[in-house]
Amino acid sequence: MSAPLQNDTFLRACLRQPTDHTPVWLMRQAGRYLPEYRATRATAGSFMGLATNKDFATEVTLQPLERYPLDAAILFSDILTVPDAMGLGLSFAQGEGPRFAHPLRDEAAVMALQVPDLDKLRYVFDAVTSIRRALNGRVPLIGFSGSPWTLACYMVEGAGSDDYRLVKSMLYGRPDLMHRILDINAQAVAAYLNAQIDAGAQAVMVFDSWGGVLADGAFQAFSLAYTERVVRALKREADGRRVPVIVFTKGGGLWLEQIAGIGADVVGVDWTVNLGRARAAVGDRVALQGNLDPNVLFAPPEAVAHEAVALLDSFGPPQRPDGTWDGHVFNLGHGISQYTPPEHVAALLEAVHAHSRRQRQPMSHGG
Amino acid sequence: MSAPLQNDTFLRACLRQPTDHTPVWLMRQAGRYLPEYRATRATAGSFMGLATNKDFATEVTLQPLERYPLDAAILFSDILTVPDAMGLGLSFAQGEGPRFAHPLRDEAAVMALQVPDLDKLRYVFDAVTSIRRALNGRVPLIGFSGSPWTLACYMVEGAGSDDYRLVKSMLYGRPDLMHRILDINAQAVAAYLNAQIDAGAQAVMVFDSWGGVLADGAFQAFSLAYTERVVRALKREADGRRVPVIVFTKGGGLWLEQIAGIGADVVGVDWTVNLGRARAAVGDRVALQGNLDPNVLFAPPEAVAHEAVALLDSFGPPQRPDGTWDGHVFNLGHGISQYTPPEHVAALLEAVHAHSRRQRQPMSHGG
Repeated sequence: MSAPLQNDTFLRACLRQPTDHTPVWLMRQAGRYLPEYRATRATAGSFMGLATNKDFATEVTLQPLERYPLDAAILFSDILTVPDAMGLGLSFAQGEGPRFAHPLRDEAAVMALQVPDLDKLRYVFDAVTSIRRALNGRVPLIGFSGSPWTLACYMVEGAGSDDYRLVKSMLYGRPDLMHRILDINAQAVAAYLNAQIDAGAQAVMVFDSWGGVLADGAFQAFSLAYTERVVRALKREADGRRVPVIVFTKGGGLWLEQIAGIGADVVGVDWTVNLGRARAAVGDRVALQGNLDPNVLFAPPEAVAHEAVALLDSFGPPQRPDGTWDGHVFNLGHGISQYTPPEHVAALLEAVHAHSRRQRQPMSHGG
Repeated sequence: MSAPLQNDTFLRACLRQPTDHTPVWLMRQAGRYLPEYRATRATAGSFMGLATNKDFATEVTLQPLERYPLDAAILFSDILTVPDAMGLGLSFAQGEGPRFAHPLRDEAAVMALQVPDLDKLRYVFDAVTSIRRALNGRVPLIGFSGSPWTLACYMVEGAGSDDYRLVKSMLYGRPDLMHRILDINAQAVAAYLNAQIDAGAQAVMVFDSWGGVLADGAFQAFSLAYTERVVRALKREADGRRVPVIVFTKGGGLWLEQIAGIGADVVGVDWTVNLGRARAAVGDRVALQGNLDPNVLFAPPEAVAHEAVALLDSFGPPQRPDGTWDGHVFNLGHGISQYTPPEHVAALLEAVHAHSRRQRQPMSHGG
């Protein structure tokens, strides 16, 4: 039995339905820029200590909602939970980012790879249910996963990379092995997201964080095709309500029209994309999510507000002259930086809500 | 008195004139993947030891030409010579990339910045003259510089960056200071490239390596506008021959049409760009340079050749049905990796030359 949703602006914008303001949430909104997050993490002892404990995960997921009038919550977790459940041995070394103890470096390792038992990811689904209960209908909860390609990057490289040499060597040299990994990842990600939806996620997002490192052609074959398989396999309704699917390819602006064609409701874009032009290209097919450069948040609050207004004006009033609506979910074009001053986030949200309400007044829209 | 040019294929392609094959050179072709380069560098003691000595610079510039049938040479130097001459104190720590001892972090430092005395860059112009003499007309010599924005990134950050937090904080928080740096950089880069042309450079390239990290809007105002000022200020003829100007913005594919409008002869593109679509968009205004993913070179030689052919086919035969020519200079979409097997480069060049000749045979073009 779920509490009724009090603020469905985010879900409505995802589905290109009328809204009285532009909804806003921020990638990595529960994170290190918040002192209360750092305190909880210190108690938990580690990142995975936070993510694998449903009480901690619930606590940090709700922290930014206590501070800011955000229109959505996002599950506190990591995109690498799935390969960890496959037995690759995830760890987060201090100040170094994620690392796998058993990366996929040879044919034997690839052939041994299997779709994981979802029971190993029970802690994620428990967190979803716990957060959903704690939210009590305040705003919708977004679940998420890495895309098959982005997971494969980490699984082969074993860690972050600045040249993707190992994973691309496999892609160009042994495409058969790469396709095998991606096939398994696509099955695993679809099952993982469907289980999050069963546990209470009201929207889901696929982070193709590293799709943009691929060459044209390779992107379509090794990233987009597998993200599409995930999207097409997802449950799209829960509690009698549509569950929107968001696909975000960082650096994918050149492929926007192709990404808009794989069945997602929303396409996330980074800050290199002109939102007005993107809307003209795909706004009648998908809603758009984005796309403020997170570095704008280092500027003084007035400058932050100025950039937010410029971005809303670039999209324009979401209602079209013919009365139909396009959808815009305001967000950053990437995760918020740990160095962000929290009060600048307040200025951003205030500007987005106020200006987007003004845009909806017929006499002054766009002004 | 210069020796006559024996292979002008590169210059002709830059200017969209007929060629009997697609010319090819590789960014960073004189570099660490070549054992002979590593040997010379060991003798010189350091990167700057190589770059500041005209004999060493000449030796390493010519090394890849001894191995491969490249259609152009590029000056061996670094994009950061200009800010070094401004007094920022460039050094290359072992395995760490470039670093400035005196980055621009406050208003006083920005106000003290000046266009450098070109005499401090004499070693670069001497190297150009020496290389030109050593080439003896074999292939044309390309000179280069970083773009005003890319130089500013290093000058403010003090080193490479993965979030560009400092330079973007200045851009959004103190745009007046950022514009001052860019104004000085544009003057310095134009004078620097003109002096390279005077010394013998037969084409020049502006590397906007970090233009693609900017948001739409910010890119046009803080990168493209200043690159345009450089391009418009360049000498375009030497020895009675046109000196082509190449502009390469890594990650700039979304702004291709705008970049094509700033007066350059050639626009470089990275591997995310579809070459056929790029040609359709701007091929009648500029030649295109690019755009193989350097990671392709880790695959076996047959796979390397396959990808090169696919890329040439994506551009298509450069002569159009109406008899006019579009220009394509084959290159990577970024510098060659130090881990590249040298014999794979040979396979690449062989494939580019052979297939592009086939494309020009009327009975079998595109096949």
